[in-house]
Formats: sequence, structure tokens, C-alpha cells
Amino acid sequence: MPAIVIHGGAGRIREEYRHAYRQGLERARDVGYRLLQSGEGAVPAVLEAVSTMEDDPEAFNAGTGGSPNRDGVVECDAAIMASDGSSGAVAAVTRARNPVLLADLVRTSTPHALFAGAGADALVRDPIENEALLTTRSRAALERWRQERESRPQTSATVGAVAMDDHGTIAAATSTGGVLGKWPGRVGDSPLIGAGTYADQSVGVSCTGTGEAFIRAVIAKGLAERLKNGAGLEDALRTALDEVAAQRADGGLIVLTQDNRLTVAFNSPNMAYAWRAPGAAEAAVALEPGLLTTSGLAN
Amino acid sequence: MPAIVIHGGAGRIREEYRHAYRQGLERARDVGYRLLQSGEGAVPAVLEAVSTMEDDPEAFNAGTGGSPNRDGVVECDAAIMASDGSSGAVAAVTRARNPVLLADLVRTSTPHALFAGAGADALVRDPIENEALLTTRSRAALERWRQERESRPQTSATVGAVAMDDHGTIAAATSTGGVLGKWPGRVGDSPLIGAGTYADQSVGVSCTGTGEAFIRAVIAKGLAERLKNGAGLEDALRTALDEVAAQRADGGLIVLTQDNRLTVAFNSPNMAYAWRAPGAAEAAVALEPGLLTTSGLAN
Repeated sequence: MPAIVIHGGAGRIREEYRHAYRQGLERARDVGYRLLQSGEGAVPAVLEAVSTMEDDPEAFNAGTGGSPNRDGVVECDAAIMASDGSSGAVAAVTRARNPVLLADLVRTSTPHALFAGAGADALVRDPIENEALLTTRSRAALERWRQERESRPQTSATVGAVAMDDHGTIAAATSTGGVLGKWPGRVGDSPLIGAGTYADQSVGVSCTGTGEAFIRAVIAKGLAERLKNGAGLEDALRTALDEVAAQRADGGLIVLTQDNRLTVAFNSPNMAYAWRAPGAAEAAVALEPGLLTTSGLAN
Repeated sequence: MPAIVIHGGAGRIREEYRHAYRQGLERARDVGYRLLQSGEGAVPAVLEAVSTMEDDPEAFNAGTGGSPNRDGVVECDAAIMASDGSSGAVAAVTRARNPVLLADLVRTSTPHALFAGAGADALVRDPIENEALLTTRSRAALERWRQERESRPQTSATVGAVAMDDHGTIAAATSTGGVLGKWPGRVGDSPLIGAGTYADQSVGVSCTGTGEAFIRAVIAKGLAERLKNGAGLEDALRTALDEVAAQRADGGLIVLTQDNRLTVAFNSPNMAYAWRAPGAAEAAVALEPGLLTTSGLAN
């Protein structure tokens, strides 16, 4: 049974942007789902869903519109992993229009798992000027951030997708511009397998939120191991969010399990998400922290 | 009770170098142990042990003598984590004499957890020329690698240390030049929390081996979670090595648990390691894959 769940980030999503988020989520979810329906695999489905959000200039902190660092440069992180154990990731890449597709090129066409900085940029087949990733909105956000007195880096809306295809293959992918105003070269959890992105034969996970907290608690792998050890999905998710909250941080996760459950869990003020499977479809900006799950899905 | 276990990498360690390895291991272990004895914490102890191995020009693939990438540049990865949950890491850094100390600067003096590439180099207080990290031996190794017909990147000897101090704080640190002949920008498992380096209040772990396999199986966090779920240490280590072997890869781990057990486990041909604790001291290049543990340690 094909199924896909995606997110457009956890944080405070201002009312004026929510419509653009919902539209963007629906579009990305549906391009991914249509691929699954036409018999394509989970990997192309998550790549298509995530790259659609990377290309969206109105919403989402990834690819075009990704949050610039404190020097005004958009440094992107992305990863993909499939349940066959293959993975690819890029960190602090500045010249890729679609970082998630570059992550997949690492997976398919290099002997390595992660590339960072100039070495990652050197893999880009059609390098772009970094300014092409800046948008009116992201320039304005940087300007506001610079004018604030306390200029801490500011969490914003990573994107991600997890899908399962008819063969039971699970894939997870995540892409982000990282925190607004980050120090140059900062890498978050998105490109780190087991932190912000993970897939095995039982579960796929993509995270968003305060990257440093997700890195230190190794959130995605911790969740997968707890499930493997017999924990219930809700308990395992609550433990993950507790580990994030214990670091005075927040964020969220999307999770797809082999038994066809799609779940969104977050402790941020809002989280943008969408899912689609036979008998279930939703695209929303959730307004209250909590745990959301489809019901009535066929196994 | 103070205790420290260190490694100088897993792989094939040629006989002619074993003496230098043992000497370097003893020196690094003892500088770390003396700090613990004089009441310093686990963090300074592992930093001192690892930076001593980084500075050793005769043995070890880290800092000075780190394996160059295929372009002849030494790109280093390093991480440190303490049981208070703090961590810092750098990836693909080229201008730090002691990458592990730069990782600790990330931990103590930035709002972030990981820096890569040029942004990591920009944090170095006294930047060096990259050539200062090349040694006669590492230049010769690159030359031999270039002359080989099949020029796959080649695993070599990462270094790491795990220590516990009198207050029960555990710290783990890892540093490496990565695989010889790697593609520029490649990042291995060493700087990734939960993959090659991890510490919590129960256990500290530092890994070495085929980084890609350790990344994809999230080896260190997987081990810590299995222990938390009640698995025995030997079983948990065997599972970790099985997950590496399943990817047709090899390597090893050093582990220190809160109950004062020091363990070295590896499935490579050799592994260089040393430990010291009240009643136990060893420094060796192990010649047969397996699991080594101290006995008779007071709890």
C-alpha cells in the first residue's frame, strides 16, 4: 500500500504564511504520492516531494528560500536514506539548486556517505550562484534578524518526507537551509543519519527543530531502536520529544512504520505537515503541540 | 575510580609500525590518566590523550600524519561528547593542528554542535598551512595509493579515547584524517554524534573503521540504546560488529561503562588500543579480531 507523510517544518508559522504552506504541502505530497501510485519506488517519491518543497519560493526553509547564515549565504544540508541501508547526504552546500538530489547522487554515485562544504559543492553538476537561492522573504528575514538586539540563530522550517512503496521499501529524506543567522559552516541534524533522517526495514523518520538538540540526542536512531525493542510508537515518540525538551529545545518528527501507520509528533508551537494513503489525506499547519496520526489505514 | 581506554585505529597495522603505535598509545594513555589522577575531569583527559596522538608524527591517522585525500589535502574530522550531554565536532577541517581541540571549542564557545569545511577552518585561532600536517609517511602512502590500479579510498587508523573521572563523568573523543584517497569533502563517522562518537551517563564510545558503514548503522547510539534496554555488553558489541560486517565493512569500538568496564571489540585484522585503570594497564596492537576486556577492576 503506498503511503507518504511530509513536513514543512516545526516552529512558529505566522498566520499570513499558512495558506502558502498548505498549498505547498499539498503539491509536494501529491507529486510524491502519484509516483507511488504509478509504481515508482519510495526513493523517487521522497526525492520528488522534497525537491518540490525546495523549489517553492513562498514557503519552506530549504533550497530556494532557505534561511541564510549570518553572512547572508544560504548553506544547505540534506540527506536521504532507504530501507536497503543505502544513504547519501550533503552539508553546508551552497551551489546546489536541489540539495536533496545532490544527497541522492552521493548515495548512488560515490563510495561515501556524507560530503561537506567545498567538496560537496564540487559534486554539483550544474552549479548555481548562491544568490539564486535567496528570496524576497528570506532577505527580509535576515534583515529583521540583523536588526534584533539579541542575534541568536533562529530555528525555522526544515522540510522532509517519508514514504513506503508497494514493495514495502521505506525511504526518508530531509532538506534545510538551517537556522537563520547561523554561524558559517554550521551543520544541523538534517544531513546526519540517525539524528534528523533515518530509515530501516521497520521505520522511516524525518525530523525538524533545534538541530543541535536532535544531534546530541541522536533522535531518529533512538526512536528506531526503542521501537525495535518493543516500545509502543506513542511512548517512543514521547521519549524523543522529552529528550529534545530536556535540552530546552523544540521540534517535531514525521514517522512511517512498516505496518502503515503515519504519525506526526511535535512540541513546537506549530508544525506544517501532510500525508496521503488509501483512505487518508490531509495537509495542515497544526496549531497545538501534540501527536497526530491517521486512522483507518488498511494494513 | 579514574579509567581511560584509547585506540589508535583498526585495520591492518604493518609489523614495522607496531612499535611506534605501542609507544604512542602508552604516551597518550598516560598523559590522560595522569590528568585523571590529579583530579582533572574526563573531558581534559580525553582531549589530552587524543591531541597527543594527533601530534604523533610516527603513527596514527589524525592531525599531523592524517591521511590525505585524493588531492593530497589532509581534511580532518573530530568530535567530543561528555555525559552532561554537551558535544562539539568539526568535519573536513584543513587548518587546525589539533582538530579535537577545535571540536571542543565548538562545544564550549559556539551555539552549534558541528561545523564543516571553510566555516570550521574560520574558527581556528592559529591556522596552520595544511602541508604542515603531511609527513614523510603519509606522503609516501598517498604516492603508493596513486600508483595502485584500483584506487578505492583506503581505511586507516583513526584515534579515540574514552575516560571516566572521579565524579563519574564520562567523555568520549575521536579524531581522524579519514580514509586515504577519499574524495574531497568526504566526512566519516568520527565527527558524527551517535555514529563514531557518543557519551551519556551510562556509557562512552569511540569507533574506528569503515566510516560509511558506521554512519549508516549509527553504531555508537545503537550500542548505547541496546545497553539501556538491558542487553549485555558482549551481545550489544557483537550486534554492532555484525551490523558493520553486514555492510562488508570492518572496524572496531572502545567502550567504557559506568560500572567501570573497559572493552575493545573489533572485526578488522588488527586494532591498536591501550587502557589504564587501578589494577589494569595495557598497550598493544591486537593481532586477532575479537573482544578484549579488563578484569579485576574495582567498581
